[in-house]
Amino acid sequence: MCGIVGVFNKEEAANYVYLGLHALQHRGQEAAGIISTDGESFYVHKGRGLVNEIFNKKGIISSLKGRLAIGHNRYSTFGDESLANVQPLYAHFDLGNIAIAHNGNLVNALGIKRHLVSEGAIFNSNSDTEVIIHLIARSKKTSFFERLVEALSIIKGAFSLIIMREDEVYAVRDPWGFRPLSIGKLDDAVVFASETCAFDLIGAEFIRDVEPGEVVIANRDGVHSYKPFKNRSEHKCVFEYIYFARPDSFLWDRHVYSIRKKMGEVLAAESPVDADIVIPTPDSGVPAALGFAKASGLQFDFGLIRNHYVGRTFIEPSQSIRNFGVRLKLNTAKDVLDGKRVVVVDDSIVRGTTSRRIVKMIRSAGAKEVHLRIASPPVMSPCFYGIDTPTKKELIASSHTIEEIRKYSTAESVAYLSLEGLKSIVGENGYCFACFNGDYPIEFEK
Amino acid sequence: MCGIVGVFNKEEAANYVYLGLHALQHRGQEAAGIISTDGESFYVHKGRGLVNEIFNKKGIISSLKGRLAIGHNRYSTFGDESLANVQPLYAHFDLGNIAIAHNGNLVNALGIKRHLVSEGAIFNSNSDTEVIIHLIARSKKTSFFERLVEALSIIKGAFSLIIMREDEVYAVRDPWGFRPLSIGKLDDAVVFASETCAFDLIGAEFIRDVEPGEVVIANRDGVHSYKPFKNRSEHKCVFEYIYFARPDSFLWDRHVYSIRKKMGEVLAAESPVDADIVIPTPDSGVPAALGFAKASGLQFDFGLIRNHYVGRTFIEPSQSIRNFGVRLKLNTAKDVLDGKRVVVVDDSIVRGTTSRRIVKMIRSAGAKEVHLRIASPPVMSPCFYGIDTPTKKELIASSHTIEEIRKYSTAESVAYLSLEGLKSIVGENGYCFACFNGDYPIEFEK
Amino acid sequence: MCGIVGVFNKEEAANYVYLGLHALQHRGQEAAGIISTDGESFYVHKGRGLVNEIFNKKGIISSLKGRLAIGHNRYSTFGDESLANVQPLYAHFDLGNIAIAHNGNLVNALGIKRHLVSEGAIFNSNSDTEVIIHLIARSKKTSFFERLVEALSIIKGAFSLIIMREDEVYAVRDPWGFRPLSIGKLDDAVVFASETCAFDLIGAEFIRDVEPGEVVIANRDGVHSYKPFKNRSEHKCVFEYIYFARPDSFLWDRHVYSIRKKMGEVLAAESPVDADIVIPTPDSGVPAALGFAKASGLQFDFGLIRNHYVGRTFIEPSQSIRNFGVRLKLNTAKDVLDGKRVVVVDDSIVRGTTSRRIVKMIRSAGAKEVHLRIASPPVMSPCFYGIDTPTKKELIASSHTIEEIRKYSTAESVAYLSLEGLKSIVGENGYCFACFNGDYPIEFEK
Amino acid sequence: MCGIVGVFNKEEAANYVYLGLHALQHRGQEAAGIISTDGESFYVHKGRGLVNEIFNKKGIISSLKGRLAIGHNRYSTFGDESLANVQPLYAHFDLGNIAIAHNGNLVNALGIKRHLVSEGAIFNSNSDTEVIIHLIARSKKTSFFERLVEALSIIKGAFSLIIMREDEVYAVRDPWGFRPLSIGKLDDAVVFASETCAFDLIGAEFIRDVEPGEVVIANRDGVHSYKPFKNRSEHKCVFEYIYFARPDSFLWDRHVYSIRKKMGEVLAAESPVDADIVIPTPDSGVPAALGFAKASGLQFDFGLIRNHYVGRTFIEPSQSIRNFGVRLKLNTAKDVLDGKRVVVVDDSIVRGTTSRRIVKMIRSAGAKEVHLRIASPPVMSPCFYGIDTPTKKELIASSHTIEEIRKYSTAESVAYLSLEGLKSIVGENGYCFACFNGDYPIEFEK
Repeated sequence: MCGIVGVFNKEEAANYVYLGLHALQHRGQEAAGIISTDGESFYVHKGRGLVNEIFNKKGIISSLKGRLAIGHNRYSTFGDESLANVQPLYAHFDLGNIAIAHNGNLVNALGIKRHLVSEGAIFNSNSDTEVIIHLIARSKKTSFFERLVEALSIIKGAFSLIIMREDEVYAVRDPWGFRPLSIGKLDDAVVFASETCAFDLIGAEFIRDVEPGEVVIANRDGVHSYKPFKNRSEHKCVFEYIYFARPDSFLWDRHVYSIRKKMGEVLAAESPVDADIVIPTPDSGVPAALGFAKASGLQFDFGLIRNHYVGRTFIEPSQSIRNFGVRLKLNTAKDVLDGKRVVVVDDSIVRGTTSRRIVKMIRSAGAKEVHLRIASPPVMSPCFYGIDTPTKKELIASSHTIEEIRKYSTAESVAYLSLEGLKSIVGENGYCFACFNGDYPIEFEK
Repeated sequence: MCGIVGVFNKEEAANYVYLGLHALQHRGQEAAGIISTDGESFYVHKGRGLVNEIFNKKGIISSLKGRLAIGHNRYSTFGDESLANVQPLYAHFDLGNIAIAHNGNLVNALGIKRHLVSEGAIFNSNSDTEVIIHLIARSKKTSFFERLVEALSIIKGAFSLIIMREDEVYAVRDPWGFRPLSIGKLDDAVVFASETCAFDLIGAEFIRDVEPGEVVIANRDGVHSYKPFKNRSEHKCVFEYIYFARPDSFLWDRHVYSIRKKMGEVLAAESPVDADIVIPTPDSGVPAALGFAKASGLQFDFGLIRNHYVGRTFIEPSQSIRNFGVRLKLNTAKDVLDGKRVVVVDDSIVRGTTSRRIVKMIRSAGAKEVHLRIASPPVMSPCFYGIDTPTKKELIASSHTIEEIRKYSTAESVAYLSLEGLKSIVGENGYCFACFNGDYPIEFEK
Repeated sequence: MCGIVGVFNKEEAANYVYLGLHALQHRGQEAAGIISTDGESFYVHKGRGLVNEIFNKKGIISSLKGRLAIGHNRYSTFGDESLANVQPLYAHFDLGNIAIAHNGNLVNALGIKRHLVSEGAIFNSNSDTEVIIHLIARSKKTSFFERLVEALSIIKGAFSLIIMREDEVYAVRDPWGFRPLSIGKLDDAVVFASETCAFDLIGAEFIRDVEPGEVVIANRDGVHSYKPFKNRSEHKCVFEYIYFARPDSFLWDRHVYSIRKKMGEVLAAESPVDADIVIPTPDSGVPAALGFAKASGLQFDFGLIRNHYVGRTFIEPSQSIRNFGVRLKLNTAKDVLDGKRVVVVDDSIVRGTTSRRIVKMIRSAGAKEVHLRIASPPVMSPCFYGIDTPTKKELIASSHTIEEIRKYSTAESVAYLSLEGLKSIVGENGYCFACFNGDYPIEFEK
Repeated sequence: MCGIVGVFNKEEAANYVYLGLHALQHRGQEAAGIISTDGESFYVHKGRGLVNEIFNKKGIISSLKGRLAIGHNRYSTFGDESLANVQPLYAHFDLGNIAIAHNGNLVNALGIKRHLVSEGAIFNSNSDTEVIIHLIARSKKTSFFERLVEALSIIKGAFSLIIMREDEVYAVRDPWGFRPLSIGKLDDAVVFASETCAFDLIGAEFIRDVEPGEVVIANRDGVHSYKPFKNRSEHKCVFEYIYFARPDSFLWDRHVYSIRKKMGEVLAAESPVDADIVIPTPDSGVPAALGFAKASGLQFDFGLIRNHYVGRTFIEPSQSIRNFGVRLKLNTAKDVLDGKRVVVVDDSIVRGTTSRRIVKMIRSAGAKEVHLRIASPPVMSPCFYGIDTPTKKELIASSHTIEEIRKYSTAESVAYLSLEGLKSIVGENGYCFACFNGDYPIEFEK
């Protein structure tokens, strides 16, 4: 996934980027970085871990000087764990300095990289974002804008980008529009962020989304919009609605929370079940479970209680103490579950192992029946556009029937939201449904 | 508050105590410590911060050797920030070594301390727990048990204690029974913990609560129970039900989650409101809001979304960026609130400042009306038994009428659960309601 | 060993104590602490490691407020590794607060501790310094001074103490005068330190040594001297001259460097050798080697070169890479040694293992002959007064003849300074020579 | 300066490189890094600080897998403080992966960089070493060796390089031979290091120096030597002998310690002085002072005592405590100096401020006269080949006569070793004397 933020023309710009990254922490917890500029030098700080952990030493934020800054939350997708892969990337090239933050995944990066390398380019990271910098640097066009456009015309795949030069900040979405990117306003400053929840935190006003294929430039002459790319049919990632985006964000003109509730409603209509209560898997299943309960008339309740202190750094108990996995995060509310026929609503199933553990926990808390309801269609194909799904083999729905999944999960019944049901909510067109139906808008090139 | 855990007779006992402290993290986030023994030496590790942070370096847990261990999560109550105050406390005295973990607050510690000091005792911390160790050490009785009983007969106030010697672990609750303490079983091991959620995590079986005034001893001869103290009327802290305990714990024969839901139901019956939706303040208001919705027939929903990544260590944004307080933790789900008459349910009001900010957030998200419903009576008097309430002056309900509180909060209406309503749920007797009615079971001695 | 510093009446007193501890770093590298007071509160910071490492975070020194401060460098002697043992110790007792820093080792601490414990005293550390605090606290005398005198009359052994109360700082040396302690002056401030090199660093003027059995009090009324103890014959530790003290310190009216050079001169006269060059073992053998060279007329040179970057924290190379011990610290200057008959001068031999390695290194660098000359008599008995010598068994000179030591060391010849030679330099009386002749001024009590 | 190490074909190669870097710590204390390879992946760890500090966490060294490894100690020369500048540098290019460690400074890097950038190269660091990687990557030659030779034929300046590919390690010295680089042997492994003291520590045998303009390749077929560059007249940096190299290293067939002693002897002959004692400024002045004493017949002694605990991280005392600079490191041995006519020998003078402080310290310890003798000629011109000398303006000897320097230093007399004297020791030819006479073998290109 990854979350990106950019601020143009605000005193202590890095501080706002820091807060924006905090609001986007759910999009990536592995690493983060901020690069700022005062128009002369570029200031960099990166690290592994949560935004808080990386920037909480006195003096770090204030060392990131200037009125322009961009930042990046890394969610491991492509490239190894080296700090060299942590974004934003920085480079010096013939038009000066550049910093770039990228959300998404290119499908033809390997081929381009191979070509660039054969022409003498050197790579210091495994990030496919480095390819973009090389393409800009090697373009024969004269202006930065033309070179950027040329470079972005060569790459294919998902790219929401925020790019900073000494005196301007660019926001770009690929022509397919896979990943989100929004424009906000904070006094005289222009703010870009993956999701609007970042604007809410820093008190910025949401203006509009960057459109697919649009290049937005914020500089001293104002905000400028260009559509320099060949038209492509829009393929926004529907999984942003299902799982990735924060429920309080407005995404592509819709409130994520409402979309998710609606998914639960449609699911209840499609796959009703005779039960006593509806419970969510916290926290991602909550809106859908509320929708399911509302539509079905069943009682909504919390049968699984989450421990909020489970952090990224929780150390593994020793060998003699096993299987703590799900229990470290969740415990059952036995009174709620005991003797009940329970519908448990989750947003999606990937490998199936967590669902199985949860069904077992619920049953051992006394539930008479456990019915698993999934507020999205079966995930059958891997994503090539920036989501770290496992290989096809590991996706339980790619190799198992619903009945086999039910047996594995040990639930009395399992039902998914149908693809038609999903489309009835978000619309027939304009979305990438590849993970559900295998229709890839662009093939991955090896 | 504070959370305490003890394990008798389990390989890698410290590892289980560590997990137990993690499950009890909500009872104290300021500091933590574990002391273990292999029957000869005592091994100590303490630190500031969350359990994860303190014990996550390789080798720390494994250096805490032995089959007996006790631990403590510190919630700042009494005593300054020095590491000397972090529990468990350790001491060497004439009967050997001792480690002690204490949840609660003594009301006559200062007087005893003054007396002990006048007799030549020296104190290395501000903790009133040190008083208990001195009393045991100075007792003229011969056996440890008799000396413990003598010491505990002198102190007054709230004390749930876990005490470790070379070869046994004690669990004690004061005769009033203010703070919880439970007994569990894990294979051949005996486990003590403030709340049963700790047993759930480590896979221990909950046996029963330690009773008020009971001393339970786990040693190689088995588990022994004594009731050596003068009978007192039971005064369990009702605020454990309202706020402190984790909702998935069983406390004093009741499921905390169910009690909280019931509070919402009674509140709805007592103070109904003509509205469109019921929302909780996450996460503590959730069960009561569910109860309120169920009893009132109003729609339950989430209008406030919590950012789960707000940690203890979040650094303050600089001066130029203000008032982020509540926004760092909560954002509104605008679709849910826009144009609605909203009932927002919280567990309690202390100072009133957070309620005011939340009401304002809800209204600025478009709510037509905001009705504040509090699932406990007005907090009018400070607690002397281990809860870090502010002084009487700072408790908004001690100096303001309900109408004044309503005005301050900017809500359309404010209503609290009545004390009678609360008693109808938990029972007329057996609880300390001092924070609501000022009836202190034991006065604080200066 | 340990180093102690105290400052009375100086703005930012803790800063001067910090610098003083840095100058005394050679007396203890295991841990350090500073306690300061502004007349009301006591401020504490302690840690493991070098003074720099412990106090180098911004804000630590400035948090140690007040015009009075004392500090301690810990050299592991007695007591385990727990932070509770790191000095200065702090305690609250009936006359207020106290902080105490102790250099030395008591010989009757165990017996007193046993007695105190039997009377109900509790101990939080293994430090025998805690005994002193208990004795002060339990004294029935009224004034602090009388109680201090009573307490110090009970204990036996080596104790140079710096004690801080809210408004005064005490400096005490035991009646035998084992360990050093000096008085300095810095503007209006009074400074106490183990060695005068601490005064040189902070720019204080050396006034005089605290005398054996003297109690010096610095308070607002000036500096006061008392001699309240029974007279004892003076037994200053001669090993301070041989090894412990920094060569640039003035100790007991003599310059340490000059004493050491003189030891080399007398050694050369006692045990001459027909050789080409004299080299020291860096750095402790340098002055004696210079003296040896001067007296013998042989050429002085450096045949062993020290790596100055070997720190306390050097990690062990893995199992497959062994025996790096002495090579990490020392390398040979082959040109200097090749083909030469070499006299290598060291300050003392304890276990003999290092001497053996050094002789072998010198020989493998091409030396034709290696003659070991030790600028102190054979160490035959352990120290009970604060020096961490090994047990008698491990002292090579306690169980081996000189010829056996020579064989073990692989040197052509080995000679020690005679005890008479040593006495001819420092004086017949006034020193403790127990480690050389077993004449203990006070026996160790178990 | 910088120190570099490489190991080919040794189990746990990174461990040996780590020890080698430790032995070369004097060549750079700002940062360090190691890159290893197991023939497939490259493993990287870098950090700021001393080698010990960077690699002392458990698991770091063992994560650097493989039988090939190279390392680098950074001494700030060129390029800012960003971690991106810390070497070895890593890059992926068309012939695979490469890691490179560089000691030296290029004089035409800026021009080449400008050209490369104009052709589309992008730079991620300020290091001129990145230029070398780009030149290799862009070469049209087919084999790596040919491309390396082409690249190194373009650059000018000082470069001792260790380069690692998946299966071989290269060692290169520039045709002028500015910086040292030696070849060692450890069982079946080949080791390269800046100085032979690294071999001594890890127990490797010194074979020979890499020659100016030589490319040495260690791979599975053995060790191969090539001389592919145009012949240049040799210009070894004479300052290596004067100050940089460790005294226990053999450099260019001479023992550094012996050279330095000889410098003191010639200096004594050139500029004798009627005095009582000769003292060094520790530790760099020690060999020359010994030589001076020997040649002059004056008594050698230590009048300045060094505190060995002054680390890189020593925090600044607050504003109210000033001028601790030299006192933190050095104290006087007053007995040695009092009433004496003192010759103090130092290796060199750069800015002159330290010399002035030292002369004043010596005099205030009672010296009757202080004569400054410098065992190298006046430093009059900055170095462009890898030594971080200040600008010409700051070099005291570039703008002041000897008499002016004497006045500033407050010494009775000042004398430098003559350039002729220096040449009489090291040889007329084969060295770069540019810092003394301004004769630059290659001009710096801007």
